[in-house]
Amino acid sequence: MEREEALKLVKEQLTDHRYQHTLGVMETAIALAKQYGGNEQKAELAAIFHDYAKFRPKDEMKEIITGQGFPQDLLEFNSELWHAPAGAYLVEKEAGISDREVLEAIRYHTSGRPGMTLLDKIIYLADYIEPGRHFPGVEEVRNMAKENLDKALIKAIQNTIMFLLKKNQTIYPDTFYTYNDLIKKLED
Amino acid sequence: MEREEALKLVKEQLTDHRYQHTLGVMETAIALAKQYGGNEQKAELAAIFHDYAKFRPKDEMKEIITGQGFPQDLLEFNSELWHAPAGAYLVEKEAGISDREVLEAIRYHTSGRPGMTLLDKIIYLADYIEPGRHFPGVEEVRNMAKENLDKALIKAIQNTIMFLLKKNQTIYPDTFYTYNDLIKKLED
Repeated sequence: MEREEALKLVKEQLTDHRYQHTLGVMETAIALAKQYGGNEQKAELAAIFHDYAKFRPKDEMKEIITGQGFPQDLLEFNSELWHAPAGAYLVEKEAGISDREVLEAIRYHTSGRPGMTLLDKIIYLADYIEPGRHFPGVEEVRNMAKENLDKALIKAIQNTIMFLLKKNQTIYPDTFYTYNDLIKKLED
Repeated sequence: MEREEALKLVKEQLTDHRYQHTLGVMETAIALAKQYGGNEQKAELAAIFHDYAKFRPKDEMKEIITGQGFPQDLLEFNSELWHAPAGAYLVEKEAGISDREVLEAIRYHTSGRPGMTLLDKIIYLADYIEPGRHFPGVEEVRNMAKENLDKALIKAIQNTIMFLLKKNQTIYPDTFYTYNDLIKKLED
């Protein structure tokens, strides 16, 4: 799918603010793919569609998670997690995206997963550091991303976990498993 | 077993510094048991023996974990975790302690576990806040322990996870499952 067509489809689904964020993720993901030898076309497509389901009603997302074979424990955790798997499903069904790698990068862009692919990492990190993001620690991760993709990703996940800890929120197990997996590979 | 006999057995296993820590954990555990309606005798016994295996050779602890049916994934994580299950085993075998609750409080005093018993919580927390402990955040947890056992425990676990995150160390899954479990029960 061409960029313009994809952006048009996504624009209808998002607020202006979230659409601007999506453009930032797209530019950042393409730059990261260039830098780290990823597939730029797939990075572009996954970035454009990563938040496709962000504003769907909770009930619809819940139904997708229940009915489409996603892990049911997602429903016991923060609903912020739901738009990622629901998005992967809807992007295939409604926008006709069939590339598994792209769909998986969308599916895991919020929780991460152990054994993240290069594309998964690019989308997760681009979502975290795109130029429209302003929060404590983001600049440090931006700088790390210029040097080492995995170290930047670990820092982003550490910050995310600490943020949730400080808010007394539960942490989805895949997020911890992703962290442990990346640390272990760094040590090897 | 009487306090004096138990202390004598433990003293042989520990450095002076660690023995002093054990006395602090004992006093704190008894006080917490009093305050929160726990069994003071069991709290005393579990506290006295909680670090029994602390200075055993790593190879011996590894062998116990491998041979005595403990989760094998412990061996993939920080060896600081090993003395707790190894201790539970050795305290039964060498000191003749047979009380399951006491042995389990020893076993889980470093990792925690989902569904911690009152005794588990008392030992975990006493180990964290006994008067000989001096590190950032300990005073806050001490104060919280005067008001609410679970909230103090959550804070201790949050601090522990953040400490490991900042050191780029892996986190044993039981530790974050414990955290999620306590947070969910707090929300209920």
